[in-house]
Amino acid sequence: MSKKVLILGGDGFCGWPTALHLSANGYDVTILDNFSRRKIDIDLNVQSLTPIASMEDRLAAWKEKTGRTIGFEKINVAKEYDRLLHILNTHKPDAIVHFAEQRAAPYSMRDSQCKRYTVDNNLNATNNILCAIVESGQDIHLVHLGSMGVYGYSTTHAPIPEGYLSVSIKSPDGAEEEREIMYPPSPGSIYHLTKTQDALSFYFYNRNDGIRITDLHQGIVWGISTPETDLDPRLVNRFDYDGDYGTVLNRFLVQSVVGHPLTVHGSGGQTRAFIHIRDTVKCIRLALENPPARGDKVKIFNQATETRSVRELAEIVSRMTGCEVRSYADPRKEDQENDLWVENSQFLKLGLQPTTLSEGLLKEVKTVAANYRDRCNLSKVPCTSLWNAKQSLDTVGTPLDLLPHHEERERERTQA
Amino acid sequence: MSKKVLILGGDGFCGWPTALHLSANGYDVTILDNFSRRKIDIDLNVQSLTPIASMEDRLAAWKEKTGRTIGFEKINVAKEYDRLLHILNTHKPDAIVHFAEQRAAPYSMRDSQCKRYTVDNNLNATNNILCAIVESGQDIHLVHLGSMGVYGYSTTHAPIPEGYLSVSIKSPDGAEEEREIMYPPSPGSIYHLTKTQDALSFYFYNRNDGIRITDLHQGIVWGISTPETDLDPRLVNRFDYDGDYGTVLNRFLVQSVVGHPLTVHGSGGQTRAFIHIRDTVKCIRLALENPPARGDKVKIFNQATETRSVRELAEIVSRMTGCEVRSYADPRKEDQENDLWVENSQFLKLGLQPTTLSEGLLKEVKTVAANYRDRCNLSKVPCTSLWNAKQSLDTVGTPLDLLPHHEERERERTQA
Repeated sequence: MSKKVLILGGDGFCGWPTALHLSANGYDVTILDNFSRRKIDIDLNVQSLTPIASMEDRLAAWKEKTGRTIGFEKINVAKEYDRLLHILNTHKPDAIVHFAEQRAAPYSMRDSQCKRYTVDNNLNATNNILCAIVESGQDIHLVHLGSMGVYGYSTTHAPIPEGYLSVSIKSPDGAEEEREIMYPPSPGSIYHLTKTQDALSFYFYNRNDGIRITDLHQGIVWGISTPETDLDPRLVNRFDYDGDYGTVLNRFLVQSVVGHPLTVHGSGGQTRAFIHIRDTVKCIRLALENPPARGDKVKIFNQATETRSVRELAEIVSRMTGCEVRSYADPRKEDQENDLWVENSQFLKLGLQPTTLSEGLLKEVKTVAANYRDRCNLSKVPCTSLWNAKQSLDTVGTPLDLLPHHEERERERTQA
Repeated sequence: MSKKVLILGGDGFCGWPTALHLSANGYDVTILDNFSRRKIDIDLNVQSLTPIASMEDRLAAWKEKTGRTIGFEKINVAKEYDRLLHILNTHKPDAIVHFAEQRAAPYSMRDSQCKRYTVDNNLNATNNILCAIVESGQDIHLVHLGSMGVYGYSTTHAPIPEGYLSVSIKSPDGAEEEREIMYPPSPGSIYHLTKTQDALSFYFYNRNDGIRITDLHQGIVWGISTPETDLDPRLVNRFDYDGDYGTVLNRFLVQSVVGHPLTVHGSGGQTRAFIHIRDTVKCIRLALENPPARGDKVKIFNQATETRSVRELAEIVSRMTGCEVRSYADPRKEDQENDLWVENSQFLKLGLQPTTLSEGLLKEVKTVAANYRDRCNLSKVPCTSLWNAKQSLDTVGTPLDLLPHHEERERERTQA
């Protein structure tokens, strides 16, 4: 009998290709979603660069192409607890994959309403899911998409470990105690804050109720398509390029196609971890196939395959396309230069063969971007979500070289 | 001009005497409350052992006795953000004291509804307050009542420090790095979980927006009255003795008066930190008088004056009253024996002179309990909120010596 899995947030950028990948690999998949991501598009007056089909058409196309059925339930898991519990009691899933969170850092910092929505939605969604698993009395493996951003960024001589850190604590009497702790979190946005708070919920429910949980600390996703989304135009994945939801590399690729300078924020020395969407969906499957045993602590994977600085990325894209790289005032409060070294041996040991930036796959994404360039609204490219009151909409979105005293101002602002 | 302070949750067990104490000490006090605590009493079919007056009568009595005015706004800060922001913009407080959270661990574990309410209420309340402070653009000092329970319980050779811990991290290359981290949290209930999640919110808003924040990690409060609540019967504080909201020592005192055996859970070897309500209100004032400077990290105090095991407490009360001590099946998942050593020098340095258990103040509380013994509902004494599915209502509330194989079962359950 095939394994039953619920994909919460299965209409989104990571959720949709995951649902297809698991269905293609023999899982009995049901998507739960409230279309919040599509509705935020309406509020922001942007749209996916790719024309995404409705959920009805997506599922019909999948059935038509593969003969496989994916179920769907429209539900807001952060608000409709009783219905969520009913779904667990009737579907009796073996596992739940939890993508049902507001997932953009800039959107989470846009204004009070967005901050409050992100906290309310993400924390209640996670708690409702955990609470419903306990109340259902079933042994359901929960796989959650977390973020590399929960770690803050390392300055040690060691790579960031997969979730847990050994430290030693010295006492006044000279005694020294070794202890394993969760890696000290340092969230850089409200969105990341909710992921660090989720981690504490997982810790508690795992210890108190024995729920088996895997938390995936994912890097920044790039790319758009997977073998499954390529099967039919109606299966195409969403592709965001706007200042709130677009991820940095995908934004650069679109910018290069539409002739916008590549928007490096500040110095571009911010180093981040990356993963291709094709690897994301494989990692989710590997996590499902390798659950923690009963009684085990929360299993944490770093779901990232390489690290690059934003400046490096811009240079790679610029070399491929000849387009200009330009520095803009950084809307975020963040270090302008950092190193990043990430342990990711667990997924490699499980057989993951990463898709790397150097393999020319940028080209595939560039092709998609070029096909839909006419759908791009240039006015949505700049990042306009300001991290705090020290920042000004007058400077954000403006090339640094056009600002008077920009270096000094930038230094003041990011150190403040 | 006197300092303006808002007391959020100022109708509760700690909030009310704090409001009076600050008003008596010259602060311009306004209480914000939604009466959630009184309404939970209705749901649980219990009442404060002391007959508490309505907010209107409380404030009229205070005015009558002291000539001082305390303002009041009925508001749910977790839900009514716009009104909260309006209050900040019009009152322009110098400080906010935040008690506006569901504060009982057993209640937070009662059932799914209580778990979900605690998470939704506490996390949205804290985020709304922080968000509104940022949006108001004012430099408001936030003082939050946290809990000693966020630490979990120490096994090191050093006392639990006040919030921050120095650790050293060894790298594979032999390098060693010293780092100061937030003390690794280990919440033992949903209530405590929300306090550890609050701590991350404070960390983020302090770093990103420069909000000045003091977080008070308070021990278990005992006692009932302060010099201010003693001024008039209409100013009396609430006194909880039930299995959800009663704190352990206050429960023992009521039990001794009404002839119920003292309800020690399991072995009683659980060591906890304590503080008298008179010291709580002084600590809040000291925290307000000693705010962190602009740019400082979150200031954390351990607000506890002594540590005792539950067994010790029961023995003290039993010696005073001659009443029986009896062990009951423990509804919590917790260690049955632990040491606890708490650093609390910050408040002592600021001049706090603790009210200790040995000072015979137990008597004052016992007098109150005796005055209102007829209001006690014995059926509400047992703790009936079960920590997880391994526990059974058939055993909880039953003396251990009446259970077959109780030691074995208890061991299995608490280790599970």
